[in-house]
Amino acid sequence: MCTFMPVESDILPTNLRPPVTAVVIVDHGSRKTASNQMLYQATKIFAAQSDYAIIEPAHMELAQPDIATAFRKCVEQGAARVVVFPYFLSPGRHWSEDIPGLVTEAAKPFPDVEWLVTAPFGLHPEMASIINDRIQHCLGVAEGRPVADSCDVCDDTGGCELRGGANRRQPR
Amino acid sequence: MCTFMPVESDILPTNLRPPVTAVVIVDHGSRKTASNQMLYQATKIFAAQSDYAIIEPAHMELAQPDIATAFRKCVEQGAARVVVFPYFLSPGRHWSEDIPGLVTEAAKPFPDVEWLVTAPFGLHPEMASIINDRIQHCLGVAEGRPVADSCDVCDDTGGCELRGGANRRQPR
Repeated sequence: MCTFMPVESDILPTNLRPPVTAVVIVDHGSRKTASNQMLYQATKIFAAQSDYAIIEPAHMELAQPDIATAFRKCVEQGAARVVVFPYFLSPGRHWSEDIPGLVTEAAKPFPDVEWLVTAPFGLHPEMASIINDRIQHCLGVAEGRPVADSCDVCDDTGGCELRGGANRRQPR
Repeated sequence: MCTFMPVESDILPTNLRPPVTAVVIVDHGSRKTASNQMLYQATKIFAAQSDYAIIEPAHMELAQPDIATAFRKCVEQGAARVVVFPYFLSPGRHWSEDIPGLVTEAAKPFPDVEWLVTAPFGLHPEMASIINDRIQHCLGVAEGRPVADSCDVCDDTGGCELRGGANRRQPR
Protein backbone atom coordinates (compact mmCIF):
# COMPACT_ATOMS: atom_id res chain seq x y z
CA MET A 1 0.00 0.00 0.00
CA CYS A 2 1.37 3.37 -0.91
CA THR A 3 -0.08 6.33 0.92
CA PHE A 4 0.89 9.86 0.06
CA MET A 5 2.49 11.56 3.04
CA PRO A 6 3.19 15.28 2.88
CA VAL A 7 6.82 16.14 3.59
CA GLU A 8 7.44 18.35 6.58
CA SER A 9 7.75 21.52 4.54
CA ASP A 10 4.24 20.99 3.08
CA ILE A 11 2.54 21.07 6.47
CA LEU A 12 4.46 24.08 7.79
CA PRO A 13 2.95 27.59 7.53
CA THR A 14 4.30 29.38 4.47
CA ASN A 15 6.55 31.71 6.44
CA LEU A 16 8.26 28.80 8.24
CA ARG A 17 8.92 26.64 5.18
CA PRO A 18 12.50 26.48 3.91
CA PRO A 19 12.72 29.04 1.12
CA VAL A 20 13.18 27.81 -2.44
CA THR A 21 16.95 28.17 -2.74
CA ALA A 22 18.94 28.82 -5.89
CA VAL A 23 22.69 28.67 -6.36
CA VAL A 24 24.66 31.03 -8.59
CA ILE A 25 28.24 29.97 -9.33
CA VAL A 26 30.32 33.02 -10.24
CA ASP A 27 33.75 32.98 -11.82
CA HIS A 28 35.84 35.96 -12.85
CA GLY A 29 34.80 35.89 -16.48
CA SER A 30 37.15 35.97 -19.46
CA ARG A 31 37.36 37.03 -23.09
CA LYS A 32 38.39 33.45 -23.83
CA THR A 33 35.52 31.14 -24.71
CA ALA A 34 37.28 28.06 -23.29
CA SER A 35 37.64 29.69 -19.88
CA ASN A 36 33.96 30.68 -19.76
CA GLN A 37 32.93 27.23 -20.99
CA MET A 38 34.72 25.68 -18.03
CA LEU A 39 32.36 27.50 -15.66
CA TYR A 40 29.35 26.05 -17.49
CA GLN A 41 30.85 22.57 -17.20
CA ALA A 42 31.56 23.12 -13.48
CA THR A 43 27.97 24.28 -13.02
CA LYS A 44 26.64 21.18 -14.80
CA ILE A 45 28.80 18.88 -12.67
CA PHE A 46 27.64 20.65 -9.49
CA ALA A 47 23.99 20.42 -10.63
CA ALA A 48 24.35 16.67 -11.17
CA GLN A 49 25.71 16.21 -7.63
CA SER A 50 23.45 18.55 -5.65
CA ASP A 51 19.79 18.81 -4.74
CA TYR A 52 19.24 22.45 -5.71
CA ALA A 53 16.56 22.76 -8.37
CA ILE A 54 17.78 26.14 -9.59
CA ILE A 55 21.47 26.56 -10.46
CA GLU A 56 22.84 29.29 -12.72
CA PRO A 57 26.36 30.23 -13.85
CA ALA A 58 27.50 33.86 -13.92
CA HIS A 59 30.62 35.84 -14.76
CA MET A 60 31.75 38.69 -12.51
CA GLU A 61 32.86 40.67 -15.57
CA LEU A 62 33.91 40.48 -19.22
CA ALA A 63 31.25 37.99 -20.32
CA GLN A 64 27.57 37.19 -20.13
CA PRO A 65 25.58 36.01 -18.22
CA ASP A 66 26.51 38.56 -15.55
CA ILE A 67 25.45 38.32 -11.91
CA ALA A 68 22.32 40.46 -12.40
CA THR A 69 21.12 38.22 -15.23
CA ALA A 70 21.73 35.03 -13.27
CA PHE A 71 20.05 36.45 -10.14
CA ARG A 72 16.97 37.48 -12.15
CA LYS A 73 16.78 34.05 -13.80
CA CYS A 74 16.82 32.43 -10.34
CA VAL A 75 13.94 34.63 -9.13
CA GLU A 76 11.96 34.00 -12.32
CA GLN A 77 12.26 30.26 -11.62
CA GLY A 78 10.83 30.76 -8.13
CA ALA A 79 13.84 31.29 -5.88
CA ALA A 80 13.18 33.05 -2.58
CA ARG A 81 16.84 32.71 -1.61
CA VAL A 82 19.93 32.98 -3.80
CA VAL A 83 23.24 31.56 -2.61
CA VAL A 84 26.22 32.88 -4.54
CA PHE A 85 29.37 30.73 -4.67
CA PRO A 86 32.51 32.58 -5.82
CA TYR A 87 34.43 30.16 -8.05
CA PHE A 88 37.80 31.56 -6.92
CA LEU A 89 40.82 30.04 -5.24
CA SER A 90 41.37 32.83 -2.74
CA PRO A 91 39.22 35.19 -0.69
CA GLY A 92 40.57 38.41 -2.18
CA ARG A 93 38.85 41.66 -3.05
CA HIS A 94 36.57 40.01 -5.64
CA TRP A 95 35.11 37.93 -2.80
CA SER A 96 35.04 40.60 -0.10
CA GLU A 97 33.91 43.59 -2.17
CA ASP A 98 33.23 43.20 -5.88
CA ILE A 99 30.88 40.22 -5.85
CA PRO A 100 28.85 41.35 -2.78
CA GLY A 101 28.53 44.77 -4.43
CA LEU A 102 27.27 43.27 -7.68
CA VAL A 103 24.82 40.97 -5.87
CA THR A 104 23.51 43.93 -3.84
CA GLU A 105 22.73 45.70 -7.13
CA ALA A 106 21.29 42.53 -8.70
CA ALA A 107 18.98 42.02 -5.71
CA LYS A 108 17.56 45.56 -5.62
CA PRO A 109 14.57 44.80 -7.87
CA PHE A 110 13.72 41.81 -5.62
CA PRO A 111 13.73 43.07 -2.01
CA ASP A 112 11.91 39.96 -0.73
CA VAL A 113 14.63 37.61 -1.94
CA GLU A 114 17.29 36.63 0.58
CA TRP A 115 20.87 36.24 -0.60
CA LEU A 116 24.24 35.18 0.70
CA VAL A 117 27.77 35.11 -0.72
CA THR A 118 29.62 32.01 0.52
CA ALA A 119 33.33 31.42 1.05
CA PRO A 120 35.28 30.55 -2.12
CA PHE A 121 37.33 27.34 -2.43
CA GLY A 122 40.04 28.89 -0.24
CA LEU A 123 41.98 26.47 1.92
CA HIS A 124 39.16 23.93 2.22
CA PRO A 125 40.79 20.74 3.55
CA GLU A 126 39.73 18.76 0.48
CA MET A 127 41.88 20.95 -1.77
CA ALA A 128 44.98 19.15 -0.47
CA SER A 129 43.32 15.79 -1.21
CA ILE A 130 42.72 16.90 -4.79
CA ILE A 131 46.38 17.89 -5.18
CA ASN A 132 47.38 14.46 -3.91
CA ASP A 133 44.93 12.75 -6.24
CA ARG A 134 46.16 14.71 -9.27
CA ILE A 135 49.78 13.78 -8.47
CA GLN A 136 48.96 10.10 -7.97
CA HIS A 137 46.95 9.96 -11.18
CA CYS A 138 49.45 11.78 -13.40
CA LEU A 139 52.41 9.83 -12.00
CA GLY A 140 50.47 6.60 -12.46
CA VAL A 141 49.76 7.35 -16.11
CA ALA A 142 53.35 8.51 -16.69
CA GLU A 143 54.70 5.27 -15.22
CA GLY A 144 52.24 3.10 -17.13
CA ARG A 145 50.49 1.89 -13.98
CA PRO A 146 46.74 1.20 -14.05
CA VAL A 147 44.80 4.25 -12.85
CA ALA A 148 41.25 4.25 -11.54
CA ASP A 149 39.60 6.98 -13.60
CA SER A 150 40.29 9.02 -16.65
CA CYS A 151 41.26 12.63 -16.16
CA ASP A 152 39.09 15.60 -17.13
CA VAL A 153 42.10 17.73 -18.07
CA CYS A 154 43.97 15.93 -20.84
CA ASP A 155 42.10 12.63 -20.97
CA ASP A 156 45.43 10.88 -20.28
CA THR A 157 46.62 11.69 -23.78
CA GLY A 158 49.64 13.87 -24.34
CA GLY A 159 50.10 15.03 -20.76
CA CYS A 160 51.52 12.98 -17.89
CA GLU A 161 54.97 12.56 -19.41
CA LEU A 162 58.05 12.25 -17.24
CA ARG A 163 60.90 14.33 -18.69
CA GLY A 164 64.55 14.64 -17.78
CA GLY A 165 66.09 11.71 -15.89
CA ALA A 166 68.84 11.32 -18.51
CA ASN A 167 70.76 8.58 -16.73
CA ARG A 168 67.86 6.94 -14.98
CA ARG A 169 65.54 5.60 -17.61
CA GLN A 170 66.34 2.86 -20.11
CA PRO A 171 66.01 3.74 -23.78
CA ARG A 172 62.66 2.48 -25.07
CA MET B 1 61.16 -8.87 19.61
CA CYS B 2 61.78 -6.20 17.09
CA THR B 3 63.86 -7.15 14.07
CA PHE B 4 64.89 -4.65 11.46
CA MET B 5 63.50 -5.64 8.10
CA PRO B 6 64.62 -3.73 5.03
CA VAL B 7 61.71 -2.28 3.07
CA GLU B 8 61.39 -3.43 -0.49
CA SER B 9 63.10 -0.36 -1.94
CA ASP B 10 66.21 -1.05 0.17
CA ILE B 11 66.80 -4.46 -1.35
CA LEU B 12 66.17 -3.37 -4.94
CA PRO B 13 69.11 -2.41 -7.18
CA THR B 14 69.59 1.39 -7.16
CA ASN B 15 68.21 1.87 -10.68
CA LEU B 16 64.96 0.06 -9.82
CA ARG B 17 64.21 1.83 -6.53
CA PRO B 18 61.41 4.41 -6.57
CA PRO B 19 63.14 7.77 -6.99
CA VAL B 20 63.08 10.24 -4.09
CA THR B 21 60.17 12.39 -5.17
CA ALA B 22 59.62 16.06 -4.39
CA VAL B 23 56.49 18.15 -4.98
CA VAL B 24 56.54 21.79 -6.06
CA ILE B 25 53.22 23.60 -5.74
CA VAL B 26 53.15 26.56 -8.13
CA ASP B 27 50.63 29.40 -8.08
CA HIS B 28 50.55 32.41 -10.36
CA GLY B 29 52.33 34.73 -7.95
CA SER B 30 51.18 38.18 -6.92
CA ARG B 31 52.45 41.55 -5.73
CA LYS B 32 50.08 41.13 -2.77
CA THR B 33 51.65 39.48 0.27
CA ALA B 34 48.34 37.94 1.40
CA SER B 35 47.92 36.15 -1.91
CA ASN B 36 51.44 34.71 -1.80
CA GLN B 37 51.00 33.75 1.85
CA MET B 38 48.00 31.65 0.90
CA LEU B 39 50.22 29.44 -1.25
CA TYR B 40 52.55 28.85 1.69
CA GLN B 41 49.56 27.88 3.85
CA ALA B 42 48.27 25.57 1.11
CA THR B 43 51.72 23.99 0.88
CA LYS B 44 51.83 23.44 4.65
CA ILE B 45 48.37 21.85 4.66
CA PHE B 46 49.37 19.58 1.77
CA ALA B 47 52.62 18.65 3.53
CA ALA B 48 50.68 17.68 6.66
CA GLN B 49 48.40 15.38 4.65
CA SER B 50 50.89 13.75 2.29
CA ASP B 51 53.88 11.41 2.51
CA TYR B 52 56.30 13.42 0.36
CA ALA B 53 59.41 14.35 2.35
CA ILE B 54 60.27 17.28 0.10
CA ILE B 55 57.60 19.87 -0.69
CA GLU B 56 58.32 23.41 -1.88
CA PRO B 57 56.09 26.34 -2.86
CA ALA B 58 56.87 28.43 -5.95
CA HIS B 59 55.39 31.39 -7.81
CA MET B 60 55.20 31.36 -11.61
CA GLU B 61 56.00 35.08 -11.68
CA LEU B 62 55.97 38.35 -9.72
CA ALA B 63 57.33 36.89 -6.46
CA GLN B 64 60.00 34.68 -4.98
CA PRO B 65 60.62 31.76 -4.66
CA ASP B 66 60.35 31.17 -8.39
CA ILE B 67 60.18 27.75 -10.05
CA ALA B 68 63.96 27.53 -10.62
CA THR B 69 64.65 28.23 -6.93
CA ALA B 70 62.11 25.68 -5.73
CA PHE B 71 63.40 23.06 -8.20
CA ARG B 72 66.99 23.58 -7.06
CA LYS B 73 65.97 23.33 -3.39
CA CYS B 74 64.27 20.00 -4.11
CA VAL B 75 67.41 18.61 -5.77
CA GLU B 76 69.61 19.90 -2.94
CA GLN B 77 67.40 17.96 -0.53
CA GLY B 78 67.93 14.78 -2.51
CA ALA B 79 65.07 14.67 -5.00
CA ALA B 80 65.61 12.52 -8.08
CA ARG B 81 62.12 13.33 -9.35
CA VAL B 82 60.20 16.63 -9.10
CA VAL B 83 56.43 16.68 -9.54
CA VAL B 84 55.04 20.14 -10.22
CA PHE B 85 51.41 20.82 -9.30
CA PRO B 86 49.93 23.98 -10.90
CA TYR B 87 47.76 25.61 -8.23
CA PHE B 88 45.29 26.90 -10.83
CA LEU B 89 41.58 26.41 -11.41
CA SER B 90 41.80 25.88 -15.13
CA PRO B 91 44.19 24.24 -17.58
CA GLY B 92 44.97 27.39 -19.58
CA ARG B 93 48.17 28.59 -21.17
CA HIS B 94 49.99 28.84 -17.82
CA TRP B 95 49.49 25.09 -17.44
CA SER B 96 50.11 24.05 -21.06
CA GLU B 97 53.02 26.38 -21.91
CA ASP B 98 54.36 28.77 -19.29
CA ILE B 99 54.93 26.39 -16.39
CA PRO B 100 56.38 23.51 -18.49
CA GLY B 101 58.69 26.07 -20.13
CA LEU B 102 59.88 27.38 -16.77
CA VAL B 103 60.39 23.86 -15.40
CA THR B 104 62.37 22.90 -18.53
CA GLU B 105 64.72 25.81 -17.81
CA ALA B 106 64.84 25.04 -14.07
CA ALA B 107 65.76 21.40 -14.79
CA LYS B 108 68.61 22.13 -17.24
CA PRO B 109 71.36 22.14 -14.56
CA PHE B 110 70.08 18.76 -13.31
CA PRO B 111 69.73 16.48 -16.36
CA ASP B 112 69.47 13.35 -14.20
CA VAL B 113 66.37 14.59 -12.38
CA GLU B 114 63.02 13.49 -13.75
CA TRP B 115 60.13 15.94 -13.71
CA LEU B 116 56.43 16.08 -14.50
CA VAL B 117 53.80 18.83 -14.55
CA THR B 118 50.47 17.45 -13.34
CA ALA B 119 46.92 18.55 -14.13
CA PRO B 120 45.69 21.57 -12.15
CA PHE B 121 42.51 21.46 -10.00
CA GLY B 122 40.40 21.67 -13.18
CA LEU B 123 37.07 19.89 -13.03
CA HIS B 124 38.17 17.28 -10.50
CA PRO B 125 34.93 15.68 -9.21
CA GLU B 126 35.70 16.75 -5.62
CA MET B 127 35.50 20.43 -6.61
CA ALA B 128 31.70 20.13 -6.73
CA SER B 129 31.71 18.53 -3.28
CA ILE B 130 33.67 21.49 -1.94
CA ILE B 131 31.15 23.93 -3.44
CA ASN B 132 28.35 22.01 -1.76
CA ASP B 133 30.20 21.95 1.56
CA ARG B 134 30.89 25.69 1.44
CA ILE B 135 27.20 26.39 0.76
CA GLN B 136 26.01 24.09 3.55
CA HIS B 137 28.47 25.57 6.03
CA CYS B 138 27.82 29.24 5.23
CA LEU B 139 24.03 28.74 5.17
CA GLY B 140 24.24 26.85 8.45
CA VAL B 141 26.15 29.65 10.15
CA ALA B 142 23.83 32.29 8.66
CA GLU B 143 20.77 30.44 9.98
CA GLY B 144 22.32 29.86 13.40
CA ARG B 145 22.41 26.08 13.00
CA PRO B 146 25.25 24.06 14.52
CA VAL B 147 28.03 23.46 11.96
CA ALA B 148 30.67 20.77 12.12
CA ASP B 149 33.90 22.72 11.62
CA SER B 150 35.08 26.27 11.62
CA CYS B 151 35.84 27.86 8.28
CA ASP B 152 39.31 28.83 7.08
CA VAL B 153 38.02 31.86 5.18
CA CYS B 154 36.33 34.15 7.69
CA ASP B 155 36.39 31.98 10.83
CA ASP B 156 32.59 32.29 10.91
CA THR B 157 32.86 35.92 11.99
CA GLY B 158 31.52 38.68 9.81
CA GLY B 159 30.70 36.61 6.74
CA CYS B 160 27.80 34.18 6.32
CA GLU B 161 25.10 36.84 6.63
CA LEU B 162 21.79 36.50 4.82
CA ARG B 163 20.75 39.82 3.31
CA GLY B 164 17.58 40.97 1.61
CA GLY B 165 14.42 38.99 2.37
CA ALA B 166 12.58 42.17 3.47
CA ASN B 167 9.22 40.51 4.08
CA ARG B 168 10.42 37.10 5.11
CA ARG B 169 12.48 37.46 8.23
CA GLN B 170 11.21 38.60 11.59
CA PRO B 171 12.88 41.63 13.13
CA ARG B 172 15.49 40.47 15.65
